[in-house]
Amino acid sequence: MEYRIEKDSLGNVKVPKNALFGPQTQRSRTNFKFGRLMPIQIIHALLQIKKAAAIVNAKDKNLDQNKSTMIVKTINQILDGNYRDEFPLHVYQTGSGTQTNMNVNEVVSHLAQKLNSDIKIHPNDDVNKAQSSNDTFPTAMMIAATDAINNLLPVLRKLVNKLNEKEIEYQTVVKIGRTHLQDATPITFGQEISGWKSAIQHDIDFLIANKAALLELPIGGTAVGTGLNTPDNFDLDMVNQLNKQLNEDFKVAPNKFQGLANHSGITMMHGILKTLATDLIKIGNDIRFLASGPRAGYNELNIPSNEPGSSIMPGKVNPTQIEALTMVSAEIMGNDTTINFANSQGNFEMNVYKPLIITKFLESANLLSESVASFTNKLVDGMTINKERMDNLLQNSLMLVTALSPHIGYERSAKIAQKAKKEGTTLKEAALASGVDEQEFKKWVVARDMTNIDK
Amino acid sequence: MEYRIEKDSLGNVKVPKNALFGPQTQRSRTNFKFGRLMPIQIIHALLQIKKAAAIVNAKDKNLDQNKSTMIVKTINQILDGNYRDEFPLHVYQTGSGTQTNMNVNEVVSHLAQKLNSDIKIHPNDDVNKAQSSNDTFPTAMMIAATDAINNLLPVLRKLVNKLNEKEIEYQTVVKIGRTHLQDATPITFGQEISGWKSAIQHDIDFLIANKAALLELPIGGTAVGTGLNTPDNFDLDMVNQLNKQLNEDFKVAPNKFQGLANHSGITMMHGILKTLATDLIKIGNDIRFLASGPRAGYNELNIPSNEPGSSIMPGKVNPTQIEALTMVSAEIMGNDTTINFANSQGNFEMNVYKPLIITKFLESANLLSESVASFTNKLVDGMTINKERMDNLLQNSLMLVTALSPHIGYERSAKIAQKAKKEGTTLKEAALASGVDEQEFKKWVVARDMTNIDK
Amino acid sequence: MEYRIEKDSLGNVKVPKNALFGPQTQRSRTNFKFGRLMPIQIIHALLQIKKAAAIVNAKDKNLDQNKSTMIVKTINQILDGNYRDEFPLHVYQTGSGTQTNMNVNEVVSHLAQKLNSDIKIHPNDDVNKAQSSNDTFPTAMMIAATDAINNLLPVLRKLVNKLNEKEIEYQTVVKIGRTHLQDATPITFGQEISGWKSAIQHDIDFLIANKAALLELPIGGTAVGTGLNTPDNFDLDMVNQLNKQLNEDFKVAPNKFQGLANHSGITMMHGILKTLATDLIKIGNDIRFLASGPRAGYNELNIPSNEPGSSIMPGKVNPTQIEALTMVSAEIMGNDTTINFANSQGNFEMNVYKPLIITKFLESANLLSESVASFTNKLVDGMTINKERMDNLLQNSLMLVTALSPHIGYERSAKIAQKAKKEGTTLKEAALASGVDEQEFKKWVVARDMTNIDK
Amino acid sequence: MEYRIEKDSLGNVKVPKNALFGPQTQRSRTNFKFGRLMPIQIIHALLQIKKAAAIVNAKDKNLDQNKSTMIVKTINQILDGNYRDEFPLHVYQTGSGTQTNMNVNEVVSHLAQKLNSDIKIHPNDDVNKAQSSNDTFPTAMMIAATDAINNLLPVLRKLVNKLNEKEIEYQTVVKIGRTHLQDATPITFGQEISGWKSAIQHDIDFLIANKAALLELPIGGTAVGTGLNTPDNFDLDMVNQLNKQLNEDFKVAPNKFQGLANHSGITMMHGILKTLATDLIKIGNDIRFLASGPRAGYNELNIPSNEPGSSIMPGKVNPTQIEALTMVSAEIMGNDTTINFANSQGNFEMNVYKPLIITKFLESANLLSESVASFTNKLVDGMTINKERMDNLLQNSLMLVTALSPHIGYERSAKIAQKAKKEGTTLKEAALASGVDEQEFKKWVVARDMTNIDK
Repeated sequence: MEYRIEKDSLGNVKVPKNALFGPQTQRSRTNFKFGRLMPIQIIHALLQIKKAAAIVNAKDKNLDQNKSTMIVKTINQILDGNYRDEFPLHVYQTGSGTQTNMNVNEVVSHLAQKLNSDIKIHPNDDVNKAQSSNDTFPTAMMIAATDAINNLLPVLRKLVNKLNEKEIEYQTVVKIGRTHLQDATPITFGQEISGWKSAIQHDIDFLIANKAALLELPIGGTAVGTGLNTPDNFDLDMVNQLNKQLNEDFKVAPNKFQGLANHSGITMMHGILKTLATDLIKIGNDIRFLASGPRAGYNELNIPSNEPGSSIMPGKVNPTQIEALTMVSAEIMGNDTTINFANSQGNFEMNVYKPLIITKFLESANLLSESVASFTNKLVDGMTINKERMDNLLQNSLMLVTALSPHIGYERSAKIAQKAKKEGTTLKEAALASGVDEQEFKKWVVARDMTNIDK
Repeated sequence: MEYRIEKDSLGNVKVPKNALFGPQTQRSRTNFKFGRLMPIQIIHALLQIKKAAAIVNAKDKNLDQNKSTMIVKTINQILDGNYRDEFPLHVYQTGSGTQTNMNVNEVVSHLAQKLNSDIKIHPNDDVNKAQSSNDTFPTAMMIAATDAINNLLPVLRKLVNKLNEKEIEYQTVVKIGRTHLQDATPITFGQEISGWKSAIQHDIDFLIANKAALLELPIGGTAVGTGLNTPDNFDLDMVNQLNKQLNEDFKVAPNKFQGLANHSGITMMHGILKTLATDLIKIGNDIRFLASGPRAGYNELNIPSNEPGSSIMPGKVNPTQIEALTMVSAEIMGNDTTINFANSQGNFEMNVYKPLIITKFLESANLLSESVASFTNKLVDGMTINKERMDNLLQNSLMLVTALSPHIGYERSAKIAQKAKKEGTTLKEAALASGVDEQEFKKWVVARDMTNIDK
Repeated sequence: MEYRIEKDSLGNVKVPKNALFGPQTQRSRTNFKFGRLMPIQIIHALLQIKKAAAIVNAKDKNLDQNKSTMIVKTINQILDGNYRDEFPLHVYQTGSGTQTNMNVNEVVSHLAQKLNSDIKIHPNDDVNKAQSSNDTFPTAMMIAATDAINNLLPVLRKLVNKLNEKEIEYQTVVKIGRTHLQDATPITFGQEISGWKSAIQHDIDFLIANKAALLELPIGGTAVGTGLNTPDNFDLDMVNQLNKQLNEDFKVAPNKFQGLANHSGITMMHGILKTLATDLIKIGNDIRFLASGPRAGYNELNIPSNEPGSSIMPGKVNPTQIEALTMVSAEIMGNDTTINFANSQGNFEMNVYKPLIITKFLESANLLSESVASFTNKLVDGMTINKERMDNLLQNSLMLVTALSPHIGYERSAKIAQKAKKEGTTLKEAALASGVDEQEFKKWVVARDMTNIDK
Repeated sequence: MEYRIEKDSLGNVKVPKNALFGPQTQRSRTNFKFGRLMPIQIIHALLQIKKAAAIVNAKDKNLDQNKSTMIVKTINQILDGNYRDEFPLHVYQTGSGTQTNMNVNEVVSHLAQKLNSDIKIHPNDDVNKAQSSNDTFPTAMMIAATDAINNLLPVLRKLVNKLNEKEIEYQTVVKIGRTHLQDATPITFGQEISGWKSAIQHDIDFLIANKAALLELPIGGTAVGTGLNTPDNFDLDMVNQLNKQLNEDFKVAPNKFQGLANHSGITMMHGILKTLATDLIKIGNDIRFLASGPRAGYNELNIPSNEPGSSIMPGKVNPTQIEALTMVSAEIMGNDTTINFANSQGNFEMNVYKPLIITKFLESANLLSESVASFTNKLVDGMTINKERMDNLLQNSLMLVTALSPHIGYERSAKIAQKAKKEGTTLKEAALASGVDEQEFKKWVVARDMTNIDK
């Protein structure tokens, strides 16, 4: 590997000869060699911030217009191009993300110099002008988190729509309900699906109602939140410029000290993602149990056979999409623990778990987007019912007895159900044997009526 | 112990002679003997539901008016009186809370009979009329959770107000900022406090913005969500009646299947409580570190001496209120894990972790209410500053160098700071020795200006 | 309420007139008014420590023999008597447990004075002699945690024994196996039970293999771990004396600095409790699903009808013992999160989450002891099988096809299974129709042989 | 992209023309497109299992010797070569890992055919002979987990050794102790380090004491644990052969039903990793606070300046290695939550969270290995003390008063400390002013004596 020598405030550093990044990136590469890379969404968000800063600084006469133009041009090229390798730093680095902020500063300055060597762009004094890692990085966190939620929402809506189709399709298919895993009173399969749909719809509503929590940008706070070394109105100008670039509705954080030292908005918002994860587990479990069998399970549902299920048991078809979905959900529950811990550990003017917090948040949001989309397309879409099986289970059930209760009282009804259970008969047989009139039984015990679906 | 014999659908049960509760409560007492009691707030909420049901059922001609009046009168007496011992069941029971629902039904029916033996009130057929544990218990969960959040909010607001007072008091007291635990650029102590205040204010805002998630009552869903055995509009009538009784703004749950099988609203809302907990840990840690010492710590703050600190080290004063507050916060992080798990484990038409979910939610909300109130009154209120110490630390700091950076560039500034550090001098000495002009230094490096507090 | 005036190092305090506790306890009562009480096991352990210290200090001529005798006599009386009300402090107090340590010192000294006013016993100078809260409290944690594990182990062994009985009883009852919730190859119900038994046995083995982690007592470390103000060999003498009193095998902690500032042993050991909790959830879920029905579920098992299952659906019998058990298990998973957090938050020579850590540990161990005992006695013991149902499900299964695979290959086998599934026939019919010889089919496909139970 | 057509039990599949993998891998690639790849350690472990199986099956006359030799040769080539791209499947797939097991079977069979087209090797009938995903995958989990712990142990030992060096170096350097963050009695810095060392040593001991939990291989259980389609003693032969190949001490799992359906050993063992994580956070926090400053913090320690600390504050040096270490530790706490959840979700004969469980376990172990190594080399190794600062803080401390307590009593001592604090004097001045004799003070109050370091 060929090197060039660069220096920073601590001395000389050997940097790979053709790298666009510089000495501080190289130091971090040497000092932190493990784990996953900083998410690309953070790099993109930082580039947008640098671009906005170049524009705002020029407007404020705080940066030479030529430099500003050059920085913007360079960043556009990076955003459009293939520069992933120039951002080689890991999540596990300094907890403020300083090294990634400097990585971005260095690449912009270096590439600008390559594009036009006449204009000297300094990574700190120009690209990072009026900024600090301490405000750019949490600002980038908010931008990336907002984007991830924006991507998740249509995926969830598509699941809701797909469930809605199924709900309509099966609106009047009566089946047994189950509580405590025990047979309960009838519902329609459409009603059951509506519960799943409602759970996801609730989570969508929670996400939307709370999106504003991610829109507060602490840019302009610089090192400790005071805005040292920023021109007047830099914060507001930056937010406006970023809104222009990103077509969003960001606001200046109402308190930048909080914005640097707490990531409560992200923590709270991840609390919604974990709620969604728990709802998905519930739905996934319902479907896979209803599809259990084919002969020795509930067997009310058929799910698509996407792959051979077993390497030893031929013909087995497994609910693999759900298994992937619930693994993702379990991961998100763990990510929530991590983010909670991390958010609690701020000290004074800074929280130094920033790269971890945003990485986990993005991981959760992205895995949910992808696994829910896959679940929707490859499982829910192709899910069908075994109507005959649903009917059989319903007709055999003892829990239709509940329809008797308002007419003959709870205790007498309970005895009839117990009699039928004990003697292995149908409920009707036990009811008639207990003195219930057949016509009344027929009038009272109508499974479909018990679902109230026609009300 | 003297007993009376009662019977339920499973047979005879020995019930303590004078107990107002009946056989089903007694069975649960025998079968589930351990752990804490079901929270009294749930009992109260169920009583309110029974009262509302008696009124609505009578209005619907679904219950004899005399019975209704008697039930209401009885419940009022229980709510006003001292009947704690009549609700002896534990959290660890059936996961639908059925046994506690029956406990309430039994006590109401039994006490009514005592008050007026002429009117026969049956626990199931009258008190529980048009209801099921499966809808009353989750409805009670929502009522109790709403109440707990209502209690928490003024406590949090009081903390915000107290912090606001302190912020104003110390608005212009300049001190060193700290990032990565390392000396950073100056802030005022008022600014630092404003960050704490803002964190709590954010959490208050989150709670308020999401309160609606707790207002959805699944009453009227009965056994599986279909509303079997309920009169028309029972759900809406019940919600209106409950709003009258409780002066709240509850709504009919938009989907009762979801309302019985998912507790997403509570799970999400607890996600805000855990966010609050993490913010409190951060604030608590800040204060106790700033108060560390008195001689070998930061020693910027004085906190009240509420008790002798050590049984072996005389004269020691410890941040005990914070220790209690952070223990509470750690507990809430664990409660969140529990609630997440529990919410994921619904099956079909039911989630059978209901008593645990609401117990943990109420525990979190109540512990937060009490510990934050204590922290506000016994610590924040009496917190004072060591102004001289703040001054000394500030003047000794090397980080004022940041004010030089816009004038002489980042790299030259860095060298000056390093020189001062290495040689143990002040920043000014190192700057002058490095060729900075004294007048310019004085003009550029003004700690208070660096805080932007006067902008 | 009548008061007496007492004073401590901070001044005068009004103490309830007849209380045995003194001013420091009273201060804590005033300053910390909420949450559960400090577990009684910690009080007992502290009393044992004080008793041992009195004996060792007298032996070392560090305490007057008369005082020592008086302290021992007093403590014996407290241990034998009913003094719960004298220990009114809460978990949420100073994080070192200092206030509870002083509570014990005060009660012992005060009661001693009542028993014999001629011998002056000072709470600090005599009862607490050669000790600090900082070493007595973590020592008490270890003693209480050890005791809790000692109580749990026989309960777990009883569950293993009960499962073993059932395993033997059902050793050769062949039934369908299930993987991915899908029908799989046969097993015997005894084999299935053996998996449950093995899981619990593994957890027992883990507890035993790691019990030593709880036996390390940091007594003798006093304030910061150095043993300041302790006589020579005080640590070893204390441990020996405590072993005599408690019939245990405690050791002097190999490093007292670690013993005061880290609770890794308890954290690790709770990691085993959470493992046990997860295994119990798995077993509980298996049983309740196998008992699901009675008509529309797996219905392979019958579980005892301990109480009426539903307030609206007569005749329903729910797996309530499992619901209680799994709620407990979910709580333990949350307690683990709390303990992890708490153990990470030590600073320098101290961890100030001690009361919370031990409270959660004891809560987990005790809830497990009680819920597992209840589950064993009230559910596992009475669990029976529906042999006919097991047979039917087995004979209907397509997964016996796996027995064909070694003879006719995986792919041909798969086709036969799919054919049977598609056409709704038995496997045998599909096999013969696909050219398998009937005699060979009968020889190859023997469900019991497939279980290898006779090997 | 060019394709070839292959078929499996579900029909035709387009497979990339030159891929060594086959149709089932391709189906999984199509069905599961997101998230990280299955860890390479699992692929390697599966290859070792396939190799062992080929050898054992040949020995048992269950596989043609030529086929066996060919499989072994092929696997050796894969293990030695660069075939990463042939294992393109993701963690989020079927929860039994079936698709990855088939991926390995397919690549081995295909490559074998390429190496020697005369010997037909079938992925199921030959490579997977006498195996099922259901036993090979959990066996691979154990092998990979064991390997990861083997890699972690020497890293932890190196940290212990490095801390031991430092302990010896600073054995007699007396400094202030701190409890509740408040000044406490003196310790030596060597003693303080010994507490850190002891914490890590405890965790090493826990890992070693429990390693056996990972050594139980369920191989030979095949589909549901019964060992269907395996020759006699296949399990023991496989374990012996694997021990030969891997130089380990694996055992046949005592119960294969448990081995397929529970991952308690991994869950418990991860409980030790999370304990280690919490201890690392404590140590990391201690060091970064002791190194806080340089002017406005504790400033007792110097840590290496590995990179410029701030993009806006020149000269700042941050504890970045600790920030990375504690981010890793926070992640492990979350992974523990995930694994706990996943282990609780087994059903009947299977747990379908296997890929997630092992991925999280390996992630934790590997991140710990790498971050602890980095922390040891780049921070602990270069850590030095500011002896003068330690001295100053010690001499200024009021807590030396504790040495007075045994001589003049707790209460009088407390008053002296309070007097000094109030008046801003040294302890000695206050003591003399309170009537303590100067010679006695000098004799009694010797900081080094208070540490007991010379005992």
